[in-house]
Amino acid sequence: MEKVSIADKLALIDKPWTPKIVGEVDDFDVKLAWLEGDFIWHSHADEDELFLVIEGTLRMDFRDRQVTVEKGEFIVVPHGVEHRPHADGRCGVLLFERKGLLNTGDGPTSELTVESPERI
Amino acid sequence: MEKVSIADKLALIDKPWTPKIVGEVDDFDVKLAWLEGDFIWHSHADEDELFLVIEGTLRMDFRDRQVTVEKGEFIVVPHGVEHRPHADGRCGVLLFERKGLLNTGDGPTSELTVESPERI
Repeated sequence: MEKVSIADKLALIDKPWTPKIVGEVDDFDVKLAWLEGDFIWHSHADEDELFLVIEGTLRMDFRDRQVTVEKGEFIVVPHGVEHRPHADGRCGVLLFERKGLLNTGDGPTSELTVESPERI
Repeated sequence: MEKVSIADKLALIDKPWTPKIVGEVDDFDVKLAWLEGDFIWHSHADEDELFLVIEGTLRMDFRDRQVTVEKGEFIVVPHGVEHRPHADGRCGVLLFERKGLLNTGDGPTSELTVESPERI
């Protein structure tokens, strides 16, 4: 029952697109990550995914539009919906998602894929 | 897939201790609430509960200690653990918890109990 400082934990993360687990709520993980540039197009067949912007600006691309999400705002990407996170510069986000969710979803496995996020 | 501004939604809430649903991730709710003064001692037999402080200061009382949680910090109260949220002045929090979680848990039902939180 220790509290967690989001800023302190984000400061421990160097590389973009490498989500780290910082908390757990039932069978969900709280993760933090830096985003920078384009991720890949993907979807998650069974899991919704929440992105809460802590620092910077997230642009969430969907096939038919883009949503710009600023600090203090969040967006939930429903399961099954193709999306591509993007950030001009660095963007720090907090993620809520079911344990086991793979960051690249149904997209191709690549150097961006994080199979087992580290707990920090 | 609309984004949600936490500050804008918090501004819509008047009364303390009246959580409102502002988002959903699978079978979990994202809620916002104002805390002010003492809540009641209670626990949730089956659900963990996350409190992320958006504004002000939360003091989470446990039977053996207190944890002060500031803006930008969160705490997860594990299921089965007695706790009493407290705020000197007003504290705005984001809650992440399984749908159906009752705010007063196993504590007595009272005017503080919110059976069906409103979606705003």
